[in-house]
Amino acid sequence: MKEQLMKMLVEREREMIEIRRYLHEHPELSFQEEETAAYIADFYKGKDVDVVTNVGNGYGIVVTIKGGKPGKTVALRADFDALPIKEELDVPFKSKNEGVMHACGHDAHTAYLLVLADCLIQLKDEIHGTVKIIHQHAEEVPPGGAKSIVEEGYLDDVDAIFGIHVLPMAPAGTVGYHSGYSFNGRAYFKLKLQASGGHGSSPHKANDAIVAGAYFVTAVQTIVSRRVNPLNAGVVTIGSFDGKGSFNVIKDSIEIEGDIRYSNNETKEVINKEIHRIVKGIEVQFGVTCELTYEPDYPPLYNDPELTSFVADTLKQVEDQDIKEVAEFPKMAPSDDFAYYLEMVPGTYFYIGCTPKGVTEPYFNHHPKFDIDEDAILVAAKAVGYVVSRYLNNEGEES
Amino acid sequence: MKEQLMKMLVEREREMIEIRRYLHEHPELSFQEEETAAYIADFYKGKDVDVVTNVGNGYGIVVTIKGGKPGKTVALRADFDALPIKEELDVPFKSKNEGVMHACGHDAHTAYLLVLADCLIQLKDEIHGTVKIIHQHAEEVPPGGAKSIVEEGYLDDVDAIFGIHVLPMAPAGTVGYHSGYSFNGRAYFKLKLQASGGHGSSPHKANDAIVAGAYFVTAVQTIVSRRVNPLNAGVVTIGSFDGKGSFNVIKDSIEIEGDIRYSNNETKEVINKEIHRIVKGIEVQFGVTCELTYEPDYPPLYNDPELTSFVADTLKQVEDQDIKEVAEFPKMAPSDDFAYYLEMVPGTYFYIGCTPKGVTEPYFNHHPKFDIDEDAILVAAKAVGYVVSRYLNNEGEES
Amino acid sequence: MKEQLMKMLVEREREMIEIRRYLHEHPELSFQEEETAAYIADFYKGKDVDVVTNVGNGYGIVVTIKGGKPGKTVALRADFDALPIKEELDVPFKSKNEGVMHACGHDAHTAYLLVLADCLIQLKDEIHGTVKIIHQHAEEVPPGGAKSIVEEGYLDDVDAIFGIHVLPMAPAGTVGYHSGYSFNGRAYFKLKLQASGGHGSSPHKANDAIVAGAYFVTAVQTIVSRRVNPLNAGVVTIGSFDGKGSFNVIKDSIEIEGDIRYSNNETKEVINKEIHRIVKGIEVQFGVTCELTYEPDYPPLYNDPELTSFVADTLKQVEDQDIKEVAEFPKMAPSDDFAYYLEMVPGTYFYIGCTPKGVTEPYFNHHPKFDIDEDAILVAAKAVGYVVSRYLNNEGEES
Amino acid sequence: MKEQLMKMLVEREREMIEIRRYLHEHPELSFQEEETAAYIADFYKGKDVDVVTNVGNGYGIVVTIKGGKPGKTVALRADFDALPIKEELDVPFKSKNEGVMHACGHDAHTAYLLVLADCLIQLKDEIHGTVKIIHQHAEEVPPGGAKSIVEEGYLDDVDAIFGIHVLPMAPAGTVGYHSGYSFNGRAYFKLKLQASGGHGSSPHKANDAIVAGAYFVTAVQTIVSRRVNPLNAGVVTIGSFDGKGSFNVIKDSIEIEGDIRYSNNETKEVINKEIHRIVKGIEVQFGVTCELTYEPDYPPLYNDPELTSFVADTLKQVEDQDIKEVAEFPKMAPSDDFAYYLEMVPGTYFYIGCTPKGVTEPYFNHHPKFDIDEDAILVAAKAVGYVVSRYLNNEGEES
Repeated sequence: MKEQLMKMLVEREREMIEIRRYLHEHPELSFQEEETAAYIADFYKGKDVDVVTNVGNGYGIVVTIKGGKPGKTVALRADFDALPIKEELDVPFKSKNEGVMHACGHDAHTAYLLVLADCLIQLKDEIHGTVKIIHQHAEEVPPGGAKSIVEEGYLDDVDAIFGIHVLPMAPAGTVGYHSGYSFNGRAYFKLKLQASGGHGSSPHKANDAIVAGAYFVTAVQTIVSRRVNPLNAGVVTIGSFDGKGSFNVIKDSIEIEGDIRYSNNETKEVINKEIHRIVKGIEVQFGVTCELTYEPDYPPLYNDPELTSFVADTLKQVEDQDIKEVAEFPKMAPSDDFAYYLEMVPGTYFYIGCTPKGVTEPYFNHHPKFDIDEDAILVAAKAVGYVVSRYLNNEGEES
Repeated sequence: MKEQLMKMLVEREREMIEIRRYLHEHPELSFQEEETAAYIADFYKGKDVDVVTNVGNGYGIVVTIKGGKPGKTVALRADFDALPIKEELDVPFKSKNEGVMHACGHDAHTAYLLVLADCLIQLKDEIHGTVKIIHQHAEEVPPGGAKSIVEEGYLDDVDAIFGIHVLPMAPAGTVGYHSGYSFNGRAYFKLKLQASGGHGSSPHKANDAIVAGAYFVTAVQTIVSRRVNPLNAGVVTIGSFDGKGSFNVIKDSIEIEGDIRYSNNETKEVINKEIHRIVKGIEVQFGVTCELTYEPDYPPLYNDPELTSFVADTLKQVEDQDIKEVAEFPKMAPSDDFAYYLEMVPGTYFYIGCTPKGVTEPYFNHHPKFDIDEDAILVAAKAVGYVVSRYLNNEGEES
Repeated sequence: MKEQLMKMLVEREREMIEIRRYLHEHPELSFQEEETAAYIADFYKGKDVDVVTNVGNGYGIVVTIKGGKPGKTVALRADFDALPIKEELDVPFKSKNEGVMHACGHDAHTAYLLVLADCLIQLKDEIHGTVKIIHQHAEEVPPGGAKSIVEEGYLDDVDAIFGIHVLPMAPAGTVGYHSGYSFNGRAYFKLKLQASGGHGSSPHKANDAIVAGAYFVTAVQTIVSRRVNPLNAGVVTIGSFDGKGSFNVIKDSIEIEGDIRYSNNETKEVINKEIHRIVKGIEVQFGVTCELTYEPDYPPLYNDPELTSFVADTLKQVEDQDIKEVAEFPKMAPSDDFAYYLEMVPGTYFYIGCTPKGVTEPYFNHHPKFDIDEDAILVAAKAVGYVVSRYLNNEGEES
Repeated sequence: MKEQLMKMLVEREREMIEIRRYLHEHPELSFQEEETAAYIADFYKGKDVDVVTNVGNGYGIVVTIKGGKPGKTVALRADFDALPIKEELDVPFKSKNEGVMHACGHDAHTAYLLVLADCLIQLKDEIHGTVKIIHQHAEEVPPGGAKSIVEEGYLDDVDAIFGIHVLPMAPAGTVGYHSGYSFNGRAYFKLKLQASGGHGSSPHKANDAIVAGAYFVTAVQTIVSRRVNPLNAGVVTIGSFDGKGSFNVIKDSIEIEGDIRYSNNETKEVINKEIHRIVKGIEVQFGVTCELTYEPDYPPLYNDPELTSFVADTLKQVEDQDIKEVAEFPKMAPSDDFAYYLEMVPGTYFYIGCTPKGVTEPYFNHHPKFDIDEDAILVAAKAVGYVVSRYLNNEGEES
């Protein structure tokens, strides 16, 4: 099956690029991807597969390709939402939805996976087991789409899951991998701190919310500096301190919002516990009342070491002119809700290099000038194709 | 002269109350007292005195009453602006200017001084020296009217100045005094702190303005706790910390505004110097750029001890059934631009009790339900009358 | 009686000076004044009065002079302990007790009071009422002697108490007074903060006592800056932060000691409450265990306004060439256990100017070069003499 | 050569263990290893190699084994100093030097390397190139011995360096490796902060060193929390805050000492720069004078990825019953001056599992009960032997 699949993918490279450009031109924000989902569903129309739409908490689509032979079940995921960014790139297929842009490459993810899925559908008689194609909505905005798809049971019968992300830190042809914790998890918090106001000249008759809030901010620094294991990554950013008031009136309440990142579950627990502890401490210390909302978003993304080695070994062994290098990539600071799938089943999330040709300092994902080398789309399709072939059909093993 | 003056004042008590009620019904905000000034100017029309209008940086009026005999020059001041407060008191002469209210008693100040001035005009042949009546605009809002009146030279030939303020902390009939520093001075500051923004997950690529601002707030606490002489009064209130932003974006700049109070000039200097020092320190410590606006408003008000004793002794010695008690009052937390006059010439600012009859817990100045016992108006007129008589004509001395 | 008393005091001025010099040469530390007490007791030997020694928690002496006529009871107090200071002054009667010095003038206090007492003993038939002479030990070191003397009931039958302190801020001949709160009260605290140690490279396995202690110090600044009424005086000084350790070992515990001052009881309560609150807050915030010892020492000293006026008026009215000026003095930062007497009975503690002749910048009390103009001793004796005469015998009233 | 070498090592296992036990019984502190060095030098006596003693800043010994055939130069290092720890382990060869203990396994390091060196000497005719044996003194105490050995030029002609460390986190038979930054670097700092003292009641006349120091401690927390890349490791521990004083005297100066750790050079630079910046900021902010001593000790240890892969691959491919597993190990928090060699030439520092048999929770290096499975010594000798054979002679390649 492997050789045939690769041949089909090469033949349909142009189609993948067209699909990617169409999607790029018609980006939609997370949880609002109505037309994108319709486009995807339409793609599968008439094909001999099971398609479920409106999956999870939005426009998710799950396509189940049952192989002709018994075997394991593997899931493949591509996300399809875009970002609230005004495109600054001048391409013929520039976003027509002003202020919205596929600046994270989800257009490319979806493009390769549609064509790969179609090829697998055509080859399904030869497939040992089942391939579940997950077209996921709303990756960019918590709570994301992944969690709800997991909760609806779509992964219950899955043995392994794979996904890729395009990254311009390497050229097209490079595939990256990282074993273990690979993307940071994150949480969000909001703190409403209630003290009591008064005249600026008479602090003793009031209880100053700004002062209590400032001591909170300084105390919070100790979480990362003293509580988190230095070999792990942890971040507590206070992005908003809303204490605007009149210069001569003691502020009665403020509102603080923060963003938390952690490289693994141990750090997640430490930060969660310490934020709560410091809030309690500030209440006691300053006699204020705090209302803390603490919402873990995406977990730290954990790539199964065995399956990561499986992917790395598989791709290192293939002799394919399009896959030029397979390299270990470093940990990444961002978060991705692919992590929820990996909490449920083993798998790995790996990277497809896409630096635009001739560019030495590429714009990164989420930049208004983010761009990709479209050669990367075929690389993605092939890489995932090789992985699936070997995982289900044992093709690729030295035999 | 003294006996005659007192007789005239008693006879015109009703008129004073009418004037006060008229003004109360027609309050105007600081620097916008056009009609009030016209009303005052109109009062002097046809009288044999020198009236200058549009004095200082607003609608100030200075009336000069030259006595028939040679002598010293004494100034008397009453302020006439109102506050942006919606009156909650139900009186027949309730404010007709919605949202503006004479909630500080300046209506009473002006009422007594108009009638007292008129009486002095009638008695001027007997006056040794000169009386300058200062009807001052804009006491409530910095930079105030007083400073500009001083700057225009109206106090250059003045030997002493007196003024009163109605205060509901004692009943009508009580006159209060305090020697030395009596009202706090104040200053205002605004700090724009410029750092550099970034993504919440990557603090090392940004410079967090909220963190620098929070450390500024905590450092500022040491000014009052460690730098100000504990026997003096000093306050540094940060009334506004404007750091509202997105929870996951490191804030690039914040704006802080503060209110400063000091009981004397030593403390004024200490706080001024230390705020500047801490701002410089924060710049160095956090690598941020600060733009500090620091504006001293009203100085601490210093009552000349000799003239304060003079007033207290004078009023203790009179035998007048309307002046029932003369008592030392404590220092006051607020500020008043009468302090500018006292920087220029010796004098004293004293207090006229005005607790509404039958009230045990009166609403204080600046409260929407602030009220006075109108008996206090005659007390004010008499008290100032006695002081002027004795100061210029030596009347009141045991002889 | 008054004239006779003054005559006797003038005649015995030399004796007062001799006594003072003798005491100056033989200073003893607080609670160790064995010889000084014996010297005092010896002075009264053979005199017709009731002398009780070993009063209170040390070497206190109370001498009761019962007058020949019925009347009120007045107490007079002089303290007699010295300080652990090495005298740097070169006088013929320099301290023979190396490292101990009468650097606060208690030698002069005792000298005048012994002679005054003796004169009163001689005049006792003419005295209306009773004079209690309190020679008090241990004023300099908490808990002081005064509290224990009060607790033993020596003031139970006293109507008023007077005491003086020599101060070099005015020349001999000046008597100072201050009504109301006049000396600060004080408290002491010790905080043992227990966290848990660990290796410097692994903060997440330890709980850093130094960090928790540092946040405590910064939080404590808010007590004075935000909780104490700015018109009152409050001080929280942390004089000791014992966190010495090895640079690469996380400190498991630290010990902090502090000194607290307050101008009145309201501030005393505020600081007490807030220190406890912040300690609780630090425990919660950092998960440490705190052991707080908080000991109020001397209360704020409150001079009864009526008796202060009585003293000021009395001394202003006397025509005595030795009492040249009677002036209001400012509040004082130090503390004195005379405050305990004033909690029990009304009275006043007033000041005897003693700037050494020809000196413009005198060394203050507690300085190794502290010195007095010995003329002040007679002034003290006369001033207290006048006060007692008028208080008990109504002598001094215009009659 | 490889087979012969392995045979020799197996035969001399008993000797290695004897050497290790002898050294264990006679531990010497860093920079005081006189007898240990003599023992090592004695071992080489009469052997046909170049031995240099007293190398570097102490008792270092470098032995150069020139092979019979041309080739590269490889260095092998073992450290031989012990720790100031009182041994709590009950073994027949327990430390005879009370209070000093080989609690870090340097005895085992030296034991294997002596025997391996001797075998290589015997086989030297077959060696392509040169082997430099570095017996290094003083690894435990900065500035360490490695830096001085590098500075004396002993690595100038070296192509690669290898070293091992025994670690009880895996059983004997396991060899661990880590590519890139593997041990943290470290620095030391001391801060003398000079302010000015004064009486506890009068903070405005002093400048409080404890307050400035406490704000320094809180500000320092922001280095790790906000300045260090969260994906790197950084630690700033303040292990000593020496501010002991009298509770009622404002402290005039304090001394702070700290320990700094960093996982790579970028973090090293960030922390160095920020500590200096905050110190400058505190000077400006509080008007104090700071004297900062900042001494980088050992750099972060960087294992060359290529040579690390070379070691891992080499040992994975050997079929040797003593080398049971070759595994990636995590980053380590401690520091090692092997890092200095790796700054000079590529190489790798890898790990030899040594959990005592039957123990599930072993005591770690530097613990008074630290122990090893002596089987690990042969594993070390063999592992390094395989690496050298393949590196110099290409033995071990599939051929």
